[in-house]
Amino acid sequence: MRTLEWCDGSIEMIDQTKLPQEVVVLRIESVPDLVAAIVRLSVRGAPALGVAGAYGVVMAALRHPPGEDGEAFDAAVESLRNARPTAVNLASMVDRVAAVARQSPASGLAEADAIRDEELAASVVMGESGADLVAELVPSRPIRAMTICNTGGLATVERGTALAVVQTLHERGQLGEAIALETRPLLQGGRLTTWELARMGAPHRLIVDSAAPFLLAQGAADVVLIGADRVAANGDTANKIGSFALALGAANAGVPFIVVAPESTFDPETASGSDITIENRGAAEVTSLGGAAIAPDDTAAINPAFDVTPVRLISALVTERRIVRFDRGDDLAASVD
Amino acid sequence: MRTLEWCDGSIEMIDQTKLPQEVVVLRIESVPDLVAAIVRLSVRGAPALGVAGAYGVVMAALRHPPGEDGEAFDAAVESLRNARPTAVNLASMVDRVAAVARQSPASGLAEADAIRDEELAASVVMGESGADLVAELVPSRPIRAMTICNTGGLATVERGTALAVVQTLHERGQLGEAIALETRPLLQGGRLTTWELARMGAPHRLIVDSAAPFLLAQGAADVVLIGADRVAANGDTANKIGSFALALGAANAGVPFIVVAPESTFDPETASGSDITIENRGAAEVTSLGGAAIAPDDTAAINPAFDVTPVRLISALVTERRIVRFDRGDDLAASVD
Repeated sequence: MRTLEWCDGSIEMIDQTKLPQEVVVLRIESVPDLVAAIVRLSVRGAPALGVAGAYGVVMAALRHPPGEDGEAFDAAVESLRNARPTAVNLASMVDRVAAVARQSPASGLAEADAIRDEELAASVVMGESGADLVAELVPSRPIRAMTICNTGGLATVERGTALAVVQTLHERGQLGEAIALETRPLLQGGRLTTWELARMGAPHRLIVDSAAPFLLAQGAADVVLIGADRVAANGDTANKIGSFALALGAANAGVPFIVVAPESTFDPETASGSDITIENRGAAEVTSLGGAAIAPDDTAAINPAFDVTPVRLISALVTERRIVRFDRGDDLAASVD
Repeated sequence: MRTLEWCDGSIEMIDQTKLPQEVVVLRIESVPDLVAAIVRLSVRGAPALGVAGAYGVVMAALRHPPGEDGEAFDAAVESLRNARPTAVNLASMVDRVAAVARQSPASGLAEADAIRDEELAASVVMGESGADLVAELVPSRPIRAMTICNTGGLATVERGTALAVVQTLHERGQLGEAIALETRPLLQGGRLTTWELARMGAPHRLIVDSAAPFLLAQGAADVVLIGADRVAANGDTANKIGSFALALGAANAGVPFIVVAPESTFDPETASGSDITIENRGAAEVTSLGGAAIAPDDTAAINPAFDVTPVRLISALVTERRIVRFDRGDDLAASVD
C-alpha cells in the first residue's frame, strides 16, 4: 500500500492524522482540499509532500487549464507552493511539474509520475547506502538505531529515508532494535513510526523525546538516523523539532548522527541554516492532544515545527546519489555531481 | 492553600493528577493509601514527598504503635521509604521522623511539623537567593527564565524551589517571561507549572520539551532553573527526565543552568551520578496520555523517570543555606557548613 496515489484525476492518500487507530484513505478532489490536507498533516514528510504537490499541480491544470484560465492555475500553484514553508521539496516539485503542465495536463501527469518513481527508487538506494554506512561506522552487532519523527514509507511513497535504513538493517538481520522518539507535539514517532516498525516486524521501543540524550549517554543506541526537510548548501539541516536536541545528545555520547534524505531535499540556494524559515505552528498543538486539553485554557505557547542542526553535529548525509562524510571533512557543495 | 496538610490524623493533599482541570483535595487515611498516592504521583516533587513521608510515619505510628506492633510499624515505614526510589528526601525524612515516632506519635508529629516548617522557610530563602544570583548572572532586563517539570508550591508546601526563584523575580518586577517545558510523559510542566504561573500572574509560554535546546540556541531565554530529586556529593544532579537534554542545550547556548533545591536533597552518601538509582516507570505513561492510547497497542517503551546531569553542565546550586558556584570551581562537599 502506497502512502499516496494518483487515481482518475484524484489523489488517494492514507490520512496520517488517523493512524495508528484507523487506516483511513482520503480521496482528494481539489487543490484547496489538498492544501488543507497538507496543512493539517494528513500527508507529511518532505518527499511525500513533493509527490503530493506534484499531483496537485496536475489537478490544478485539469481544473484550470493554464491556456484558458491561467490566473486561477497560477493561484492554485502558488497555494500549493506555500502550504508548508520549511520543506523545499514541496515548492521545487510544484515548480517542476507546473513548468511542464503549462504545456499540457498529460505532460504534467507524466512528470508527476516520474517524480513518484524517482522517490521510490531513491528510498531503496538510501536504505542500502545508509545500511552500508551504519555497518561501517558501528562495529557492534546487533545495531541499535535511534530515530525521530516518521521517515518511513508514510513520509515518502514507500520505505522512506532514515527509516528505510532501519528497514534495510532489519532485512539484513543486523538490527538489534529501533528506538523511536515519540516526537511531540504531533507524535509522528509514537503514532506512525511504531506502526510502520510493527508492520515490518522490527523490534522497537518508544521513548519520550527528552529521554533521548540521556539514553544515548547511557549507551542505549549505536547510531542516530534522521530525515530532513531542507539541507542547506553548507550541510546545516532543518528537520522536525527535537532533531537539534538529539544531535547534541549524539555528539555528547560520541554516537554517529546521520541524515538520510533525497537530493530533492538539498537546497543549494540556502547558504546555511540561518537562512531557513522555521514554520511556527499554533499553540493548540502544544496545549492539547487528540482534542483533549493538557494545559490550562488560553495557555500561550511557542511552537516551532522544525529546528536546524548545524553541520558540525552531523556525521554524514546519505542521499540516493552520494554519501557526504562531514565527519571526514567532506564539503557538501563541492561533492555535487 | 498548601499542597499538603496534616489534619486530625489524616493527610489532606491536592490531587496533582487532576490538575489543571479540577482542584480535588484527597483525604488520605492510611499508609497504603499514601504509598499509592505517591506512586501514582498525586503528590510529587522531592520536598513535598519528604513532608508527605514524614506525616505518613506519624500515621503509621498512630495505627501501629511501635511499642506494641513494631513489625507492622517497621513494614509501613519501609513501604514509605521505597515508594519512590530516586528522591532522597522521602527516605531521609521518613527515617528522621521514624526515629522520633518510635518514642511517641506526638513527638513524631512535632518532628513532621518541623520538617514542613523548614521546607516552607527554605522555599522563601531559595527564591530570594536564587533571584539574587540570576540578577547577578544575567545583565539583561527583563529576565526570561526557562524551567522544566513542576518545582513550585505544588512540589513543596508553598512557593517551591526553582519556581520560587521565578516567583521572586516576578514579585521584584524583573521577570520578562517564564518558558515552561511541558515535561513528558506526565506533563507536570504543562499541567502544573502553567497553572501556578497563571495563579501568580506571571507571563509565561509553554513549549514541548524537545524545542528547548533549539530555542536556547536562538536566544529565547537568559537562564535555566531546575529543581532536583537528588544531588550527589560531587554535584551531579538527578532530576526529571529531560533535565540533561536541557543542560546540554544551555551549555551549547552559554546560558546559566542553575539547580535550586533544599539541603535535604543533597546526599553526601552518593558519591556521583553513576551511583544514583534511576526509577524506570511503565510503558503506559509513554504510550498513552490521559487514558487515551497514543501509540499502537502493546508498543514497548523505555521510560526513565529521571536523568542525571553531570556537574560540569551546572553553573550553580542554590539551597536555603548556600550558593555553590560550580562555574567558579566551588566544591560542593567542601562547602558543607
